[in-house]
Amino acid sequence: MTTLLVYDIEVDKTRLKMSEACLDYGLQRVQYSAFLGRLNHNRRQELFMRLRRILGEERGSVRMFVLCDKDMALHKEVDNEMWR
Amino acid sequence: MTTLLVYDIEVDKTRLKMSEACLDYGLQRVQYSAFLGRLNHNRRQELFMRLRRILGEERGSVRMFVLCDKDMALHKEVDNEMWR
Repeated sequence: MTTLLVYDIEVDKTRLKMSEACLDYGLQRVQYSAFLGRLNHNRRQELFMRLRRILGEERGSVRMFVLCDKDMALHKEVDNEMWR
Repeated sequence: MTTLLVYDIEVDKTRLKMSEACLDYGLQRVQYSAFLGRLNHNRRQELFMRLRRILGEERGSVRMFVLCDKDMALHKEVDNEMWR
């Protein structure tokens, strides 16, 4: 299933560690703080635990969504060359 | 169905207009640039068109995801008081 990961992190260093973890797990960066990719159940749980550990007690929010193929088919985007 | 809207916008004023549009449509702000809520098909299309119009030719990215209840049940979050 497709995994979407979005975060909002106060501390730059923590944000960098989060992005590295997401890329390590093979997710693709689609926005500065949004990552998308296919992960199986175990890898998804692992990544979430890792991100939770990285955040620790710091201020911030991490949200992980799972999207079935039917939902992904309804996904819409406008992308004006922010990430290319 | 639940709608998740995430954006990444370069210009502050445009970002503000986007957030106002999302709130106008009854979405709840869950992160600085992420909004969540229930919208029917028509309202979802309308909001997306509005956001696309707001962005125009500016640099930025807007992504809209639709999540069925089954997918929403798998949603996970850590939220350390960033938005309260």
